[in-house]
Amino acid sequence: MPNTFPADSVGLVKPSIAHFDQPLPLECGKTLPSYELIYETYGMLNTNRDNAILICHALSSDHHAAGYHCAEDKKPGWWETCIGPGKPIDTNKFFVVCSNNIGGCKGSTGPVSNNPKTNKPYGPDFPFVTVKDWVKTQVQLADQLGIGCWQAVIGGSLGGMQAMQWSIDYPERLKHCFIIAAAPHLSAQNIAFNEVARRAIITDPDFHEGDYYSHNTEPARGLMLARMLGHITYLSNDAMLAKFGRVLKEKNYQFSYDVEFEVESYLRYQGEKFVGQFDANTYLLMTRALDYFDPAQEYNNNLSAALSMTKARFHIISFTSDWRFSPARSREIVKALLDNNRDVSYAEITANQGHDAFLMDIPHYMDVFRANMSQLKISGNHDATA
Amino acid sequence: MPNTFPADSVGLVKPSIAHFDQPLPLECGKTLPSYELIYETYGMLNTNRDNAILICHALSSDHHAAGYHCAEDKKPGWWETCIGPGKPIDTNKFFVVCSNNIGGCKGSTGPVSNNPKTNKPYGPDFPFVTVKDWVKTQVQLADQLGIGCWQAVIGGSLGGMQAMQWSIDYPERLKHCFIIAAAPHLSAQNIAFNEVARRAIITDPDFHEGDYYSHNTEPARGLMLARMLGHITYLSNDAMLAKFGRVLKEKNYQFSYDVEFEVESYLRYQGEKFVGQFDANTYLLMTRALDYFDPAQEYNNNLSAALSMTKARFHIISFTSDWRFSPARSREIVKALLDNNRDVSYAEITANQGHDAFLMDIPHYMDVFRANMSQLKISGNHDATA
Repeated sequence: MPNTFPADSVGLVKPSIAHFDQPLPLECGKTLPSYELIYETYGMLNTNRDNAILICHALSSDHHAAGYHCAEDKKPGWWETCIGPGKPIDTNKFFVVCSNNIGGCKGSTGPVSNNPKTNKPYGPDFPFVTVKDWVKTQVQLADQLGIGCWQAVIGGSLGGMQAMQWSIDYPERLKHCFIIAAAPHLSAQNIAFNEVARRAIITDPDFHEGDYYSHNTEPARGLMLARMLGHITYLSNDAMLAKFGRVLKEKNYQFSYDVEFEVESYLRYQGEKFVGQFDANTYLLMTRALDYFDPAQEYNNNLSAALSMTKARFHIISFTSDWRFSPARSREIVKALLDNNRDVSYAEITANQGHDAFLMDIPHYMDVFRANMSQLKISGNHDATA
Repeated sequence: MPNTFPADSVGLVKPSIAHFDQPLPLECGKTLPSYELIYETYGMLNTNRDNAILICHALSSDHHAAGYHCAEDKKPGWWETCIGPGKPIDTNKFFVVCSNNIGGCKGSTGPVSNNPKTNKPYGPDFPFVTVKDWVKTQVQLADQLGIGCWQAVIGGSLGGMQAMQWSIDYPERLKHCFIIAAAPHLSAQNIAFNEVARRAIITDPDFHEGDYYSHNTEPARGLMLARMLGHITYLSNDAMLAKFGRVLKEKNYQFSYDVEFEVESYLRYQGEKFVGQFDANTYLLMTRALDYFDPAQEYNNNLSAALSMTKARFHIISFTSDWRFSPARSREIVKALLDNNRDVSYAEITANQGHDAFLMDIPHYMDVFRANMSQLKISGNHDATA
């Protein structure tokens, strides 16, 4: 097959599935009897097994971080901008792993998966999962892959929170920790937006208390609203101005509730596209995991204390126009790390794209990312047979 | 009856209703065959009829700006902080008028009113209304009250937009124009939030294409979501932090979608309270009027040109933490007025309450408001018989 993919892409990739038959006790008090993680890998693990990088995904993304699933794929993985040969996360050098979180809907065990007890989808019976739980499953995946210590754990947004949790819970198992466009916990405003999104889903008459699968429907209206609202918080005010302004669909006002402004068209498109691609119960679980994330909580709300056992070198990146997790939130993390004399670099990227900037090909961001990645030291050689 | 109201309140007030039997052509191209405005007045009109002030209300408020409707009323009108004897809008000195906008649901002709053609509520057949239309109706009210020129037209948020429209459309009929916490038009982000709110209402199965009255129901879920979302944009991030932080309802996480955080409880309460108090069709109309407001549009998007025929003295006030209509938006208005050598004062009040600050008793705001009001010159004497 001729390679039709860009030269700086990992190209054709295929997910793998890891099975875990041991029961998994969760933070909520419940136990998953067994579970699966779907994951992808890019690049090759070296002989010393010290060039492995774990990528943690954000709210609505998944294990497909880079490359293409087939020649016809129009869109690559969600972090194609950063992962690939010669890119900041250089697959010529690193073995990159990305798994879908449990509770997800893209192949790892979640609400749409079969509940062995009932032989029906878990649905609303799928237990609440937390960032801590996700890290625990990723440890089991690392064990299965024979990776004792990640060269780096990297994530943006909710993924950055997972990277932070790794540094706290398993300080010996990562050398570098990249926390990008994240926060040490959600603000009241962040929780408020999540709450509106959840109410939209839960009050949708098609939600059926989460058991919409057995009613052969889904809370499409609610999920659409949740996604539209999400998109507003992913973009900055300036980005929306630049992208849409007050541009009208027609020349004049039509005096209707149909699309008058381009921004309405964009939001409806994003909302409608999401439905059918994403599971509403997963959306609920992921937003709740965001709400619950707060490593300082068990340290009397002292973030410095929470980070006191960490050993990684930290790389914190924020974006000026990100109002979901603003630079001030990243600086809270930097401050707490400095309180502990941790090795930490901090970059505040001037970018008007808002929260979504962490996914974008912004030259200064790429340069900073690359410079930080150059600090990773690999001792082993590549295994040419892998 | 003993006066049980605070001494600086206008006390017991009673709304009046003005009838207008002439057809009202609207900007949307349709015509209202007749209409009514419900309004309240506080203070006394003087002999020269030059101490009248018009108050314009915002999205979800009404004609009841100050005082109490009965001795048992727990809450006074929505701008009790600013209107009353000795307050910035001093009812010992001024005759204050506030009417409910048409399209409203508090007594002026709107979707819940009887459509003379069908003898049923207008519902979705109520025509689209604009800020320009509202000003036109307020002119007819002024005529009926015998007020040739307002000493001031004053409004916050959407009310500020009405004040601005007055200064453009009827420059001879107001001496002073107060535009508080407003903007010369909605940003793409503002429109986006309105769009999510409207989709929540319109996609609610109980909406019945706006004719929910005849189905004996209302789109309660959608209206609740719209109100919850609205409240997030009325409060600043800092205000939410100060008010709620991450305070939990119970001591520990309950791992549920019920209320975990105080901020969720607040939003649900606000959302649920709104349902039954406000009409969903009115909410749709008001948000669309906000979207449509853009006086610069017919001047090739040149706000300076739009304001070139104004004659009033302008008083612009914004609040530092207002992210719905930020100080930058007020400065656009100031700049356009200065381009025209208009007499304008501008105050940016340091306040962490967000957009809602314009309703609040903030000492520096009250001082600034009072100082600006002291510029109003009244020639006539009070008519002691009024």
